[in-house]
Amino acid sequence: MKIQGKPYRTVWPLPDGKGIEVIDQTKLPHRFETLRLSSVESVAHAIRSMIVRGAPLIGATAAYGLALALKEDASDDALDRAHDMLLATRPTAVNLRWALKRVCDAARNRPRELRANAAWREAAAICEEDVETCRRIGEHGLKILHEAAAKKDGKVLNILTHCNAGWLACVDWGTALAPIYMAHDEGIPLNIWVDETRPRNQGAALTAFELGSHGVPYAVIADNAGGHLMQSGRVDLAIVGTDRVARNGDVANKIGTYLKALAARDNAVPFYVALPSSTIDWTLVSGDLIPIEERAESEVTHVTGRLADGGIATVEIVPEGSSAANPAFDVTPAHLVTGFITERGICAASEAGLRGLFGERREGRS
Amino acid sequence: MKIQGKPYRTVWPLPDGKGIEVIDQTKLPHRFETLRLSSVESVAHAIRSMIVRGAPLIGATAAYGLALALKEDASDDALDRAHDMLLATRPTAVNLRWALKRVCDAARNRPRELRANAAWREAAAICEEDVETCRRIGEHGLKILHEAAAKKDGKVLNILTHCNAGWLACVDWGTALAPIYMAHDEGIPLNIWVDETRPRNQGAALTAFELGSHGVPYAVIADNAGGHLMQSGRVDLAIVGTDRVARNGDVANKIGTYLKALAARDNAVPFYVALPSSTIDWTLVSGDLIPIEERAESEVTHVTGRLADGGIATVEIVPEGSSAANPAFDVTPAHLVTGFITERGICAASEAGLRGLFGERREGRS
Repeated sequence: MKIQGKPYRTVWPLPDGKGIEVIDQTKLPHRFETLRLSSVESVAHAIRSMIVRGAPLIGATAAYGLALALKEDASDDALDRAHDMLLATRPTAVNLRWALKRVCDAARNRPRELRANAAWREAAAICEEDVETCRRIGEHGLKILHEAAAKKDGKVLNILTHCNAGWLACVDWGTALAPIYMAHDEGIPLNIWVDETRPRNQGAALTAFELGSHGVPYAVIADNAGGHLMQSGRVDLAIVGTDRVARNGDVANKIGTYLKALAARDNAVPFYVALPSSTIDWTLVSGDLIPIEERAESEVTHVTGRLADGGIATVEIVPEGSSAANPAFDVTPAHLVTGFITERGICAASEAGLRGLFGERREGRS
Repeated sequence: MKIQGKPYRTVWPLPDGKGIEVIDQTKLPHRFETLRLSSVESVAHAIRSMIVRGAPLIGATAAYGLALALKEDASDDALDRAHDMLLATRPTAVNLRWALKRVCDAARNRPRELRANAAWREAAAICEEDVETCRRIGEHGLKILHEAAAKKDGKVLNILTHCNAGWLACVDWGTALAPIYMAHDEGIPLNIWVDETRPRNQGAALTAFELGSHGVPYAVIADNAGGHLMQSGRVDLAIVGTDRVARNGDVANKIGTYLKALAARDNAVPFYVALPSSTIDWTLVSGDLIPIEERAESEVTHVTGRLADGGIATVEIVPEGSSAANPAFDVTPAHLVTGFITERGICAASEAGLRGLFGERREGRS
């Protein structure tokens, strides 16, 4: 997607092949800065500290991290160490495990001198596939938006989204936001309710930045507000992303997603989850088995933003010495989800629905 | 309640009778400052700008505001003007209308020279009654906490609350927090999950300040987190306050309350609403008729807090030029509420429940 007219992806290889460059998402929306990562350690740090985030992008970046590790040391031990280091960075998104396995599989059964290049090519392939996958998710989701817009008789279609499942969460396009970009480009009048998504404000910072850069009308709302907007008829549908989908259709996504799904159900608002199939964890029978990351208390107690003079500052919003708790994800039960938007089409949020589209993958892909 | 050992109320008359003094709640938790208000205009500004807030405290402060207006000009016209100015400050809390009516009734049918003093006495009486009412709410709510604690077999009782319905929202004690203070004082081990309550952070700022000052253990959480905590069995019950209860038991309270009530129902967590009977609007048959205040976008786009050096700063968290929407309240349908905790006891969240306790008031009190 474009930022001030210039096309960007969220991760790209350096021309010399000695590293990758990423957008530093902790600086957005106040500063647009990119960062070069040339070691597996720096990639692991970038994922842990959420310089890069979003399930698909975590996978793609980690894939390059593994390739960088093999450039240093192509031994089995080094491969295992790098794999384990990267896998430990974030526990909830399963795309990380999936991408690391792909790169390991591509590298391991080769002579050592060929491993690094094989891994690098596999990481690049993961990135290319992610772009195409997201584009297809956009096209399939667009059909839903066409149907919803048809009912609005030319009036603005109001869509609520939570966190950031846009191109900044992927390599390009995004998952939940891909159909929104396509609908906007077709001239369908839209208003996006952007949940700010405390504690890290990915909605206020990243989704607002993305939508604004592309010219899609939006309004940021407190995470508390979505229920009331649904009650008062101001949300036509909701679309979110996900970090891991269990085999039965339960959805782990950014903390607070579950609350919006409950409100959507209570108000008969369709609630869609957009995902690449790499987000499906066929090994888990249900969502309660998905590990939920607990992050630092400081993400809750402190907020970073832009001062009136343009400087960046971090302020504490609680009394000194306050405790906080910070679970980063929650699980939305499948029965609250209207449907999944995948690269192969729309399906029910159920094992049968997922098998219908991805039947060949149903046996214990880990 | 006490702050650093010194007992405070949230509003008190100046010794010379020429004004009132209030705690400036926009400065908490970073600064403890009080403010003298000596005109109806300054009282109206204090309510509008949320220097004082919380349904019971809004009513009590507005009552003094009307008395201050009559000290200036005791004519019928002045009384009506002051009434209308104060009534227009905040649309959702009905205690405001209730308190203003009480003071008007006390003043209007008297000779002009006696009106100001009569109004002043009525305002003082409203304050005294509010303290006693909240104390009783605490005692009745304490029974619920006793029962809940008995099931925990000595383990910590986890209670979730939203916004601030503590003594800072009232004259003293609080509504939702009154039983919590009493249970803590009895030695029941508690942990309070404090929803930060974006956009104005009344939980992170005021509830955390109150609980910390009193020594009650708490942890601040993002508003997004309560559903997950309930799903994982870490919430034993929820207690919130309210700004207006319709005759059928529908509850208007700070934006986001509805989402927590949905999650409580989905996880069989008891969800109580604590209220003085002045919060009941017998004129409204259901909650969809309660006016919902829309506040400034800047409350969503900007956050104020304490810098590392102790200074106070306001930062913008969205891209420049972002739109925002800021509905300040939502309505929780009565069927999601386990029970009301009132000054006369516990009752069902229904017209029958309310009539059972407040039968004499059921006819169109406005």
